[in-house]
Amino acid sequence: MKRLAVLGSTGSIGVQTLDIAESFSERFQIVALGAGRNIDLLKEQIEQFRPHTVSVFSEALAQKLANQLSAPPEIVHGIEGLIQVATLDEVDMVISALVGAVGLVPTLSAVKAKKNIALANKESLVMGGKIVMEEARRMGVDILPIDSEHCAIFQSMVGHHREDVHRIILTASGGPFLHYPMEKLENVTPQEALRHPRWEMGKKVTIDSATLMNKGLEIIEAHWLFNIPVERIDVQIHPQSVVHSMVEYTDGSIVAQMGITDMRIPISYALSYPERLTLQLPPLDLCEIGELTFFRPDRSRFPALELATHAITIGETMPAVLNAANELAVNAYLRGALKFIEIPRIVEATMDAHKIQSVQTVDDVLKADHWARETAREFLERDR
Amino acid sequence: MKRLAVLGSTGSIGVQTLDIAESFSERFQIVALGAGRNIDLLKEQIEQFRPHTVSVFSEALAQKLANQLSAPPEIVHGIEGLIQVATLDEVDMVISALVGAVGLVPTLSAVKAKKNIALANKESLVMGGKIVMEEARRMGVDILPIDSEHCAIFQSMVGHHREDVHRIILTASGGPFLHYPMEKLENVTPQEALRHPRWEMGKKVTIDSATLMNKGLEIIEAHWLFNIPVERIDVQIHPQSVVHSMVEYTDGSIVAQMGITDMRIPISYALSYPERLTLQLPPLDLCEIGELTFFRPDRSRFPALELATHAITIGETMPAVLNAANELAVNAYLRGALKFIEIPRIVEATMDAHKIQSVQTVDDVLKADHWARETAREFLERDR
Repeated sequence: MKRLAVLGSTGSIGVQTLDIAESFSERFQIVALGAGRNIDLLKEQIEQFRPHTVSVFSEALAQKLANQLSAPPEIVHGIEGLIQVATLDEVDMVISALVGAVGLVPTLSAVKAKKNIALANKESLVMGGKIVMEEARRMGVDILPIDSEHCAIFQSMVGHHREDVHRIILTASGGPFLHYPMEKLENVTPQEALRHPRWEMGKKVTIDSATLMNKGLEIIEAHWLFNIPVERIDVQIHPQSVVHSMVEYTDGSIVAQMGITDMRIPISYALSYPERLTLQLPPLDLCEIGELTFFRPDRSRFPALELATHAITIGETMPAVLNAANELAVNAYLRGALKFIEIPRIVEATMDAHKIQSVQTVDDVLKADHWARETAREFLERDR
Repeated sequence: MKRLAVLGSTGSIGVQTLDIAESFSERFQIVALGAGRNIDLLKEQIEQFRPHTVSVFSEALAQKLANQLSAPPEIVHGIEGLIQVATLDEVDMVISALVGAVGLVPTLSAVKAKKNIALANKESLVMGGKIVMEEARRMGVDILPIDSEHCAIFQSMVGHHREDVHRIILTASGGPFLHYPMEKLENVTPQEALRHPRWEMGKKVTIDSATLMNKGLEIIEAHWLFNIPVERIDVQIHPQSVVHSMVEYTDGSIVAQMGITDMRIPISYALSYPERLTLQLPPLDLCEIGELTFFRPDRSRFPALELATHAITIGETMPAVLNAANELAVNAYLRGALKFIEIPRIVEATMDAHKIQSVQTVDDVLKADHWARETAREFLERDR
C-alpha cells in the first residue's frame, strides 16, 4: 500500500490522481490533501477518501470547511498547511500538483522529508531546479515527472545508459494558434486561447500552451530533471500530440513514448513506477490516426521559446523571473487586461530589467520571484 | 576487447559488421570468419582483419583460398567448418549472419558453447526457436537481435517490466509493391522486386520484403525472442520505415525506436549492448521527413502474413516447413521459374501437405526442412 499526499487535489491533475487512486484502492491510500479555495470539491474528496489531514488557503476557509463536515480531519491552512501535508510521517509519496510558484516550497519540503515526488508542478524545477535536484540527490529521493513530455522522456531513458543520450526532443502540439499569422495573433481572446486542440488542462497551462511558454518552461524542467545542457534540448511541433517526446542516442537511435492524450497515463506511471497499472483507456491506434507530422517551431511568432532558452542559459535567478513575469502576464490576459501577443513582451521586459543574483537558497529564488512580479506589474500598468 | 566470430562475413550484414569492427578496433577483434563461396571478398577480409580461423563452403574452395594467401589462417569448410568458427574458445560473441536455414546448426552450436549471439539469421529462430531459446536460457546466453525491427523492440523493452507488455507492433515498409493491384502483382519481375524502397539488403530478404514473408518470419522470430503469444504481435504498414517497431504496455503507453534505415545501428547496438557506440551517421530528422503514416496490411494481396501466423500458431515443425518452402520458392522466382504471386501458393501447398511432428531435437527440425524442400520442389515441377 503506497500512502499518498496530493497537493493541488482540486485541480485537473489532482482530480485525475484521485480517480486513479480510487480505481486502484488496493494499492494507494490517500493520507492527505492540499487544496486552495475550492472547498466544495475538497469536501467531496474528504468524504470519499477520508484523509487524516487536509490543507486549505486560509484560516477562514478551514473554519468553513470544518463546519460542513460531521467528522472533519485535521484541517490546516496556508503555505504552512501545505508544508505540513507534504511532510507527514505516514506519507510515502507526494503528488505535487499545485499550479504556479506556490508549489516550490511545499515540494522542496517534501523532498527534504525524504518523500518520493510525483511532479506536475513544473515551477518547482523552473524556479528552484538547482536546489530541488541537489536536495533530491542528497536524500535519495525519486522525482517522477507527471508532465506527459517528461514522462515520455523518462520512459525513453529507463534502462538505457545516461551517457549515451545525445539529445532530448520535446514535442509540442503547437496550441490553438499554430498557423495564425502575426496580425491575427494580436487579438485572440482568452476564450479562443482556452480551446486547446489536444489536451484538457487548467487555464494557466492552456494559455501557456497557446504562447508556447509551456514548452519553454518544459525545456527548463527537462534540463534539471535529466541533467541535460539546454543546447541538447530541441523542440519539434507535432500537432497530433501522439509522440509525447523523444530521446536521441549517440548511435542515431531515437526512443520515443507515444499514447493517447490522457494525463492518467503519466500520472499512473509516476504513481506505480517501476511497475505499470493496467488502465482501461482506449488504445492508441496509429492506423486510425493515419499520419504523424513534425516541423520546426516558428520562433518569431512564439518568442516564449527563445525567452525560456535564454533564461536557463543565463540560469541563477533568471528562470524564476521568467516564470513570475509570465504568471502575472497570463493572469492579466485572462482578465482582459493584456493582449495575447503582449504576454511575452511583459516577460521579456521584466527579464531585461533583472539583475541576476546567484541562487544559494530558496529565499534567493523567492526574492527574485517577488521582484519579478512587482516589476512586471509596473510594466503592465505603464502600458495601459 | 570483445572477440568476434562473424558467420556470413561476405554477406550484407557481415560486411557492415566488419565495417563497425574496423571503426571501433579498440573494442572489437575479429577472431574468425565464416563465409561461403565468395572467396575473393573473404581474401580481402582476411588480409585486413587477420582472423585465426576462417570457414568456406567446400574443401576445394579452402584449397583455392589457401593458395592465394601468403600466410593463410586455419581454413576449414562446410557445416563442420561453420560450427568450428562458431565455437572457438577465444570467441566472446558470434555474429550469426548466414542467410537461410544453413544458419540454424552453427547458431545453436554457438549457444551451446556459451557464446553471446548477435542474431541476423532469423531462420535460426523461425525453424528452431524453441530449441535455441531453451538452450540460451540454460546457458545464460544473450541473444541480441540484429533485425532492425527486433532491435527496436528490444530497445523499447529494456528497463521496462516484461509482465507489463501488452502487445508488440512490428512495422513493415510494405516493400516495392505496396499499392499494386492483384493483376499487376502477377507479373512483377525479380528486377522490380529487388528494388526495395527503403533498405539495401541481400536478395533473399529483399524478395521476402516484397511478398511480406519477411514480416511473417519476423512475427515468428519476435514470438520466440520476446516470449510473446502470436495474437499479441501486430503488423502495421509504415512506408517511411522511420519507426522500426513498437511495444505497447498495459497502461496504454507505446514505446518505439526510430532511426534512419542503416543496418549499422542495430548491428552496433547488438555488438556493444548495453552501451552504445557513437556512429557518424546522418541524424534522423523528423522535421525534414515531415510525416509518418501507418495503415493496416492488405492480407489478401499479401497472404504470407497469414501463412506465417498460421505456422507459428500450429508450431512444432510447421514454421520450419513454411521457411523451407519459401526459400525454395524464392530461389525459383529469382531464376525465373516461378511467378511472384505463386511464391505464397507453393508455401501454402507445402504446409497443407505437411504432417506436423513434435520438435524435440534439431534433427526433427532438419528432417521437416528436408521434407518441405522435396515437397515444394514437387509442387514446383508439377506446376510447369
